[in-house]
Amino acid sequence: MKSLTLDRRLLPFAPLLYVAWADGELEPGEVRLLREQLLEAGLAAEVAAPWLDPDDPPGSEDLLALLSWIRDHAEALDARERRSLAELGFALAAGAGHETDAAARGAVERLAVALELHQGESMEAVLARERPLAELPEIEPRFQVAALAELLDGDAREMRLRVRALLASGLFEPAIGLSTNEYRARVLEWCRALAEEGLGALAMPTAFGGRDDPAAFVAAFETLAMFDVSLLVKFGVQFGLWGGSVQQLGTEKHHQRWLEDIGTLDLPGCFAMTETGHGSNVDDIETVGVYDPDAGEFEIHTPSARARKDYIGNAARDGRMATVFAQLETLGERHGVHAFVVPIRGDDGEPLPGVAIEDCGEKLGLNGIDNGRLVFDRVRIPRDHLLDRFASVDADGTYRSSIASPAKRFFTMLGTLVGGRIAIGGAAVTAAEVALAIAVRYGARRRQFGPPGAPERVLLDYPVHRRRLLPRLATTYAFGFALHDLQRRYVDESVDRRRVEASAAGLKALATWHATDVIQECREACGGQGYLAENRFAALKADTDVFTTFEGDNTVLLQLVAKDLLTGFRREFGDMGAWGLARFLVDRARAAVVERNPVAIRRTDEEHLRDPAFQRDLFDARRDDLLFSLARRVKARVDRGMNGFDALVACQEHALAAARAHILAEVFEAMHSGEGDAPGSSVAEALERLRSLFALSTLERERAWYLEHGYLDARKTKAIRDQVDDLCEELRPDAVPLVDAFEIPETCLAPIAL
Amino acid sequence: MKSLTLDRRLLPFAPLLYVAWADGELEPGEVRLLREQLLEAGLAAEVAAPWLDPDDPPGSEDLLALLSWIRDHAEALDARERRSLAELGFALAAGAGHETDAAARGAVERLAVALELHQGESMEAVLARERPLAELPEIEPRFQVAALAELLDGDAREMRLRVRALLASGLFEPAIGLSTNEYRARVLEWCRALAEEGLGALAMPTAFGGRDDPAAFVAAFETLAMFDVSLLVKFGVQFGLWGGSVQQLGTEKHHQRWLEDIGTLDLPGCFAMTETGHGSNVDDIETVGVYDPDAGEFEIHTPSARARKDYIGNAARDGRMATVFAQLETLGERHGVHAFVVPIRGDDGEPLPGVAIEDCGEKLGLNGIDNGRLVFDRVRIPRDHLLDRFASVDADGTYRSSIASPAKRFFTMLGTLVGGRIAIGGAAVTAAEVALAIAVRYGARRRQFGPPGAPERVLLDYPVHRRRLLPRLATTYAFGFALHDLQRRYVDESVDRRRVEASAAGLKALATWHATDVIQECREACGGQGYLAENRFAALKADTDVFTTFEGDNTVLLQLVAKDLLTGFRREFGDMGAWGLARFLVDRARAAVVERNPVAIRRTDEEHLRDPAFQRDLFDARRDDLLFSLARRVKARVDRGMNGFDALVACQEHALAAARAHILAEVFEAMHSGEGDAPGSSVAEALERLRSLFALSTLERERAWYLEHGYLDARKTKAIRDQVDDLCEELRPDAVPLVDAFEIPETCLAPIAL
Repeated sequence: MKSLTLDRRLLPFAPLLYVAWADGELEPGEVRLLREQLLEAGLAAEVAAPWLDPDDPPGSEDLLALLSWIRDHAEALDARERRSLAELGFALAAGAGHETDAAARGAVERLAVALELHQGESMEAVLARERPLAELPEIEPRFQVAALAELLDGDAREMRLRVRALLASGLFEPAIGLSTNEYRARVLEWCRALAEEGLGALAMPTAFGGRDDPAAFVAAFETLAMFDVSLLVKFGVQFGLWGGSVQQLGTEKHHQRWLEDIGTLDLPGCFAMTETGHGSNVDDIETVGVYDPDAGEFEIHTPSARARKDYIGNAARDGRMATVFAQLETLGERHGVHAFVVPIRGDDGEPLPGVAIEDCGEKLGLNGIDNGRLVFDRVRIPRDHLLDRFASVDADGTYRSSIASPAKRFFTMLGTLVGGRIAIGGAAVTAAEVALAIAVRYGARRRQFGPPGAPERVLLDYPVHRRRLLPRLATTYAFGFALHDLQRRYVDESVDRRRVEASAAGLKALATWHATDVIQECREACGGQGYLAENRFAALKADTDVFTTFEGDNTVLLQLVAKDLLTGFRREFGDMGAWGLARFLVDRARAAVVERNPVAIRRTDEEHLRDPAFQRDLFDARRDDLLFSLARRVKARVDRGMNGFDALVACQEHALAAARAHILAEVFEAMHSGEGDAPGSSVAEALERLRSLFALSTLERERAWYLEHGYLDARKTKAIRDQVDDLCEELRPDAVPLVDAFEIPETCLAPIAL
Repeated sequence: MKSLTLDRRLLPFAPLLYVAWADGELEPGEVRLLREQLLEAGLAAEVAAPWLDPDDPPGSEDLLALLSWIRDHAEALDARERRSLAELGFALAAGAGHETDAAARGAVERLAVALELHQGESMEAVLARERPLAELPEIEPRFQVAALAELLDGDAREMRLRVRALLASGLFEPAIGLSTNEYRARVLEWCRALAEEGLGALAMPTAFGGRDDPAAFVAAFETLAMFDVSLLVKFGVQFGLWGGSVQQLGTEKHHQRWLEDIGTLDLPGCFAMTETGHGSNVDDIETVGVYDPDAGEFEIHTPSARARKDYIGNAARDGRMATVFAQLETLGERHGVHAFVVPIRGDDGEPLPGVAIEDCGEKLGLNGIDNGRLVFDRVRIPRDHLLDRFASVDADGTYRSSIASPAKRFFTMLGTLVGGRIAIGGAAVTAAEVALAIAVRYGARRRQFGPPGAPERVLLDYPVHRRRLLPRLATTYAFGFALHDLQRRYVDESVDRRRVEASAAGLKALATWHATDVIQECREACGGQGYLAENRFAALKADTDVFTTFEGDNTVLLQLVAKDLLTGFRREFGDMGAWGLARFLVDRARAAVVERNPVAIRRTDEEHLRDPAFQRDLFDARRDDLLFSLARRVKARVDRGMNGFDALVACQEHALAAARAHILAEVFEAMHSGEGDAPGSSVAEALERLRSLFALSTLERERAWYLEHGYLDARKTKAIRDQVDDLCEELRPDAVPLVDAFEIPETCLAPIAL
């Protein structure tokens, strides 16, 4: 032992000496400092020497003994005396009867600063006291949660409340650990319970037990996503796709025959469009429906392995009939894809003759759905099983249609099914809300790390944790408003269908990708807890994962949006040779951002950055600029003789970016308009912050584009980043109330969120 | 019927007229055009009139009849005559005995262009022929796949080949649809089979049945990730964590007693560090191990619900003993966290007295692992069950350690377990390789959409599909090289441990996030097929999802890296007051990119952008710049009196960015150096392209930062984007050979990939 305690003049230095030597090897410069200050304090060289030899440093036994001694004696001291290693040294010396003189005091303090040991935390590490516990801070909501909830639910609040109440009723308990068979049976039971409540028939005509209320149907569907997504999809397949296809593509006779039984789930059925060889490009499916005028029947046939109907929900176990999409052929001529109703199972539940059914087996998620494969071997159905709203075949085989173009006819048929995309977009937002509700509540309670000697800090008090959750929360609000706005436009027949279809395609794509991202981030933000099935991310992640693929693959959907934008652009500018005008409009939009107000470009203050007009200008400018340049690039290629398909493929990424920008501008409008509907100033304030956080975090993510195109400069993008940080901090106290406003029943939440 | 066929002079216009009216409502401008050109062709007004009245357009019956007529007559024509709607019109007229004169010919052609109907695809839409099928193109590999595979496997090729052969041997069949109990039993069986092959003991001393070869152990582990990740984790828990803790934290007596039985799996055990209340901040765990000198025993106790050991692999079903981490207390003094070996189950498999074991239940993935919770009620163990390599307690209770600082001691203990992080990083890369192998092979076969009349196009021939997969493939290669390089440094004892630990932490974080991203993108890129369990993404996604959390939460790990970088920075510049020097170095780095060669900044040519020196300069500049500014910002806060913890929290995002940039620069070096080891010019060429694609796609993703900080201008970032596109196209023919080089056994692939 280097017997430090024997010389009282060393005591003021003792804590510093312990830490300096125990924590690491001292650099030569640090040893020099140490020597200077010990001598400065008037210590004799032989007293100081044992602490100054890097080649023979104090041993760990000495240091441990010193540490024990310090801790023993520190216990009796008061808090002020334990504020720092220096103070502790003075107090320990005093306790041993040695008053530290001014010179020694100065030396100790200089040394503490030079070794970066002057902070309280160095002190705490020596004392190694147990970390104090602390209660969670009480945070009073700054706005009326119920008022916000009402605004979010919108017109369909009554239906949403009813579904929430059902989900909380005890019948719907999360299914964890069931076998696939048990799970499928459970989902069918649940679905029956919903049908008994009349939810399945909501969109159907009142004549067949329905309520003729598609908005209520979509709202019910969307709310079910709080619970089990297999149930949601079963519900959607039976009532939305199977029922919807009979209702939308069929005529009165079909409605009379089948609709009521579909709505009660007495007639479970399928929507058989996808084939093994064709999922996205359904125009090219290969199943055929050939009309035989002698028998007055269609023959439905699967001509190849690629033409097998695949992934068909309700097919493997429960479905009795199916809407089958096939190439209609009559009198030797093909007329494109049409929909036929084909019975697939008898009353005994066995496949009917000519129908082969296979189970798709285990899937990544949605294992409560009995997806199956259907193969038809020249199955005959009566002529009137053709769903003939848009096209019919006379008894003699004459083909009739009110739409002469096969392509247009097919898109019209698909267009009637747009409700599915709107519903999936809404369900994705609901799933994101559930994930956020769990992660935000957990993040507001879980403590982790903290300064030495202080209570551990709550996760949401870390900037990075807020950054992970709060911009995503804001964006989820924005998508929620956008989807509800789209639902309103969907049921309002005065709104242009083409625009509704484009919005539905684009919002479905962006909302489902957003949900995938949010759920993943929330899972990770809950650490290991997020990985336990009981905490719901397992099901949310797996079950919603396919949202980006079904009801239209997202990448394909964005291309549809882009094509639609190009068509619109051509209509507006193309045939008039008005490209100069388009260029002018884009330039004007740029000026609006960059030049209109010469001060605006340089302004980086909060008022400016949070101004919705500024934010809108940026969203709109990007939308217009990308569309214009896309149109220009596609046209240049077509003008050089490339076919339209190849020209668009060559600009594929640009097209996706333009579609994305277009939809984001729409989302911004919906969010901003939602804010305008706020029932009071406190709710409005919260929504304003969310709108700015959505807008600015989106602009931040896309800032490279704005920098490259001269809409923003680096000073401004940095100011935007700082605003995002500030908004995350400002919204911290609102975080829990904002997820409470989703009013998710406890049965749909997680143990870590309660 | 508007009886078009009756007037032969209309025939040359017939196909155009059909398409124009069938596809949509004509704009007034288009009708005007039509009128002008029909008159131009010399048609009488009454002949043209029925086709020019927007208020009484041709009916769908007329149009359908016209379409039938066109198709009937088009069948007999040769390909040249069906090149466009105009040519078709001329041929139809000629067939009806009417030769189109020059005036009419000109009118038809002008009309086709004006209506944008001059391309072949408009033609194909009318004929609606079935799409031709086409064979997949044969692509000859441009390099020796086997030679690249050998390079990738590196030093441990023999061990990797052995594990691959085992996985292909028939014993290891994918487990789909098993119950949790069956799955756990299966995983234990598999693990025993690996132990019988001697794989469990690879890293253990030869004296205890091992091969003293940690590199081989890590290689075996990493290769197992091709198959079932539950097996991988079981293997890791038993041999890496339980075995590794006894080997690394214990001494000879512990090795003698337990190592051999651990290596053979005769003694299944656990690694019990995590507690319900403390996962990342393990320094603050609450379980206590109190020494009782009278009995010569430690008492292991769980003082609170938070202190429950949680998520412990092997605990719920198989484990007999556990390395339990607890706060050591002796003679009334706490000495921080230490590791104790605690028996938890008797020979009968029942929990021992005082030990309560609970099953964690279903998880998002890894359900072949029996995670459990352990609660100790004053369980007594002999004094020599303390793993005492770094600290011991004498019989009388005297505490001894060669490391005086509790913090340093704890980090030293944790440091011995760094192999786990390296192994998980490697396993993440392997899992990403499996996902890419499946998605790339599928993308090279699956066809979807195409120009009308032409075969559908292969997915990988779409730019966006290549963009989804190929930069991720390149980055996976880069991470693969980086991890193998780290493995070499890990077993080379001459390399500074601190740097190995920092690299391990950072690479684990980035590689596991990368794997999560890759697997998700590959799943989506395979559409619905990707969602079927048999195609493996289900298991890959779910099982690897927790990689971002366990063995250190990624966010926490990056903060560790940042702290380590700050410590290094302070050592280099801090104590010498050398901030000016640091500033100088960063400025010099910027100059290297921006100014060194006045031409460089403006160069956007391929040679320059693909030059590794240029790429390195950018990676390094970002690394240095971010670290310098981080250090400056943290120091500014500390100088203002903030404690170190809060100062770092305030700069948390900046810290993460700096850590990320540091690791990415390391990954770039490893990739570049791997390229240098290529066994031949063709392999080297492929690796060069991959390196450039990794580098440039990374720079593209981070381009906002480079733009903001003046390292790149917009012209150059656009050139980088174009290079990424070009590289994706150039690498298209290599895509399949590049995933073949991973040599993944067919048993580990998917039906869609075979």
